[in-house]
Amino acid sequence: MKLVNYQLKHPYAQNRIGVIEENKIIDLHAAQQELLEQNKIAADSHIIPADPHTFYEQANVHIKHAEALLEQITNHSTVHVFDRDEVVLKTPSPTPSKIICIGTNYADHVKEMGSELPEYPVLFSKFNNALIGPEADIHKSEATDKLDYEVELTVVIGEKASKVAREEALEYVAGYTIGNDISARDLQKRTPQWLQGKSLDHTTPIGPWLVTPSELADPSNLAVKSYVNGELRQSSNTEHLIFDISDLISFISNLITLDPGDIILTGTPDGVGFAMNPPKLLQSGDIVTLEIDKIGTLENKVIAK
Amino acid sequence: MKLVNYQLKHPYAQNRIGVIEENKIIDLHAAQQELLEQNKIAADSHIIPADPHTFYEQANVHIKHAEALLEQITNHSTVHVFDRDEVVLKTPSPTPSKIICIGTNYADHVKEMGSELPEYPVLFSKFNNALIGPEADIHKSEATDKLDYEVELTVVIGEKASKVAREEALEYVAGYTIGNDISARDLQKRTPQWLQGKSLDHTTPIGPWLVTPSELADPSNLAVKSYVNGELRQSSNTEHLIFDISDLISFISNLITLDPGDIILTGTPDGVGFAMNPPKLLQSGDIVTLEIDKIGTLENKVIAK
Repeated sequence: MKLVNYQLKHPYAQNRIGVIEENKIIDLHAAQQELLEQNKIAADSHIIPADPHTFYEQANVHIKHAEALLEQITNHSTVHVFDRDEVVLKTPSPTPSKIICIGTNYADHVKEMGSELPEYPVLFSKFNNALIGPEADIHKSEATDKLDYEVELTVVIGEKASKVAREEALEYVAGYTIGNDISARDLQKRTPQWLQGKSLDHTTPIGPWLVTPSELADPSNLAVKSYVNGELRQSSNTEHLIFDISDLISFISNLITLDPGDIILTGTPDGVGFAMNPPKLLQSGDIVTLEIDKIGTLENKVIAK
Repeated sequence: MKLVNYQLKHPYAQNRIGVIEENKIIDLHAAQQELLEQNKIAADSHIIPADPHTFYEQANVHIKHAEALLEQITNHSTVHVFDRDEVVLKTPSPTPSKIICIGTNYADHVKEMGSELPEYPVLFSKFNNALIGPEADIHKSEATDKLDYEVELTVVIGEKASKVAREEALEYVAGYTIGNDISARDLQKRTPQWLQGKSLDHTTPIGPWLVTPSELADPSNLAVKSYVNGELRQSSNTEHLIFDISDLISFISNLITLDPGDIILTGTPDGVGFAMNPPKLLQSGDIVTLEIDKIGTLENKVIAK
């Protein structure tokens, strides 16, 4: 199942939870209400929230019920379906309590950045001010001259995770999406801590949708690519992650309790613009396209702001 | 005015906004309702929310009205007053969208940690999983053997702040409190990024209350001290901050939009346990007492957890 946070192109439209199938968006809450009114599903059915914030507060509970509901919708049909061009897609989990990023997690990228191979996962963070949806523009502020892209397999947490064993870690995943860990290299590197170069307003696209584990069970062998204006820049595979998804969820949850809706960006492979000779950094007007196998494409434009 | 987030010692008691005066807690919302019912204030008065999350979403708007209301309460008296021992105090702004910490912001501490004097403020973060109130215990988890204290003047933001000039920065402050930037030195230093040593569950006391700018207009000359089991460890003054409160709000807001309720821990002076010879790190049972002039005392016990 591919979950979207979508908005109809109307004034004052809400952000709502939907499912996308072959360029059609189905509104889960509205379709469920329709089936309830028609007595086609049990009157005491678990209600799927319309609101993405509420949905992600108990993501894995709602996802389980949403998958069962989707079968019923398919069997009975619904009027609550929209064409792709009638909606704007937003970032899947829009109000995470944490955005945790992993640094130096592909050996080739560690080498190109002149860093050392990590003995433990390197954790840093972004704040929600940085988050943008798959159809929003990346803001290049005047504070930076060295804006860079980083394609990353991105995990959304589905239930509270504390002291989770590696073997059980994937049970805590709501799903997978694509993240662009946009980084202002000048600000990232002017102090020993990276945060100020990693959380500029309106810089971090996440999306376009969340692929749930029923559709993507194994995140350990996915091709990961980035392009700028159509030119291939990064090309790797999640099999090269130094710490894989299970390692990361187990490692983090033994220090920091993870909550539903929390976002983990799992690190980027080599090929970032900063490390090229000469560097190829992002300019206003550039189009950054990220692709991850079995998930899709995340494409955003850079604009001066 | 000293604002508290308090809870009565009853089952299922709410967290509520109050004011503390000479060991008495006045419930602002309930006292306002009482005055409204008695027709002692205008029927169209701005309502002070009872709930701390709602209050801090528009902190400076509510604080302005709360200060006017408090005069009316004092003139007319209220039944909604509790003794200090009837309540538990919680952390003033309990659900910040960001906790931003400043590293290496007192020259003497920079020296003892073997760091370099910063050219720009060093920003890093904690997440809300770390936050605890002034009466809660600091959890020493098995993940660390090197837990350390750091007394810090702590600022809560009162209104949305983007690209604020230094001269206007203090207008965006809701108030001042005390923070203990508890740090697991082993985890902080085993990777180049400090986050994993700074955001362990249930480790960061903030409180005991928020002193608003009407009572504390100038944060630039406040004595700052910490004690462990009564032994003085840190003793400095905010006049020694390398980047003062106005510098920090201006600097951060030019990169990252600050929201009401956001918390900034402004850095710690020298005297931390890790830098002593031999090191004096925190053990289960230790009592850490922090004092800042014109704010008060924040005292927490360390327990194994």
